[in-house]
Amino acid sequence: MSYDVITISREFGSGGRTIGKEVAKKLGIPCYDQEIIEKLAEESGFSKDYIAEKGEYANHKSWFANAFASGGTNHASSNQDYLWVLQRRIICDLAKQGPCVIVGRCADYILDKEYNCLKVFIHASIEKRIEHILKNYGERKESPEKRLSEKDKKRKAYYKYYTETEWGLAKNYQVSLNAGVLGTEQCVNIIEAIYNLGK
Amino acid sequence: MSYDVITISREFGSGGRTIGKEVAKKLGIPCYDQEIIEKLAEESGFSKDYIAEKGEYANHKSWFANAFASGGTNHASSNQDYLWVLQRRIICDLAKQGPCVIVGRCADYILDKEYNCLKVFIHASIEKRIEHILKNYGERKESPEKRLSEKDKKRKAYYKYYTETEWGLAKNYQVSLNAGVLGTEQCVNIIEAIYNLGK
Repeated sequence: MSYDVITISREFGSGGRTIGKEVAKKLGIPCYDQEIIEKLAEESGFSKDYIAEKGEYANHKSWFANAFASGGTNHASSNQDYLWVLQRRIICDLAKQGPCVIVGRCADYILDKEYNCLKVFIHASIEKRIEHILKNYGERKESPEKRLSEKDKKRKAYYKYYTETEWGLAKNYQVSLNAGVLGTEQCVNIIEAIYNLGK
Repeated sequence: MSYDVITISREFGSGGRTIGKEVAKKLGIPCYDQEIIEKLAEESGFSKDYIAEKGEYANHKSWFANAFASGGTNHASSNQDYLWVLQRRIICDLAKQGPCVIVGRCADYILDKEYNCLKVFIHASIEKRIEHILKNYGERKESPEKRLSEKDKKRKAYYKYYTETEWGLAKNYQVSLNAGVLGTEQCVNIIEAIYNLGK
């Protein structure tokens, strides 16, 4: 049974985005990442920066409080919910167009019932991720440890809230890879091999 | 950097043991699984069945209560603790003898600091695991769902207690594979490929 879509869920700073792009390049299929943010910006009128943050991270203390106090059933509708609905539609439309790689944005959960997804999770140790974010995004006022820990918490909460499953549990993916140990090239080769074996 | 040991952690009924054996066969290195139980039985005087259960599962309500009430610091020593120490030494001795595959028994945690381990986690859906246990172990008085759920809980608690980390989190392994979707042969090929790429 061949795969319709490869979804790449990744820890911030694990290099999962690069792996997704490389896999798509090797397989000659599109990789959707920035395109989703652009489409969301176009359709919603929000800025790309706002969407990049809101489309994967639970961002405000009030949002956390609201979301969990209500048990996820009767919370007030918000920009985040509006973006979730829009994002869901955009991701479904992209998947309809044919085989592709989709990075992040809960695509694994959104597409799981209708498509045969090769669900991949990319992770790495804190040390490797710090190396990666300092190299790619430079120094910030906050320490890299704090930046990573906050991103992890917010992404985890976002995922839990919208999908009702745990983010980063091996069980939720077909394959999870430690990119810090295996390296980008090896991760790309493994994903390519699994995709091709599915044909 | 070549791998010294391949450790296979696996969900009960996921077929991880078979995958471990096949990987070892393909690589021409020993696979330790039953051998560890036999050595433990020999050295401790306990029966193999008792060890198979006690060496990976937290088994009694009293043990749970005791272990967690004390915060894991001052619990009464028990057969389980005695077996843990013995198991730890046996696993270290086996790893010293050269490249090998070790199935289960927290070998990933035990060997992590001293050896370059390719840490693998094998999982599968509940449906696939039920299929597997009915085929391999037959019907029992308890429903397969209940058998799996109890095994999962006990193994998770055992792992948490002795290693202080979460069992089944993708981050704890270099590679996690869904054997129910990928199939035994493909899992074996992926592990073999990663091991050989590390050479």
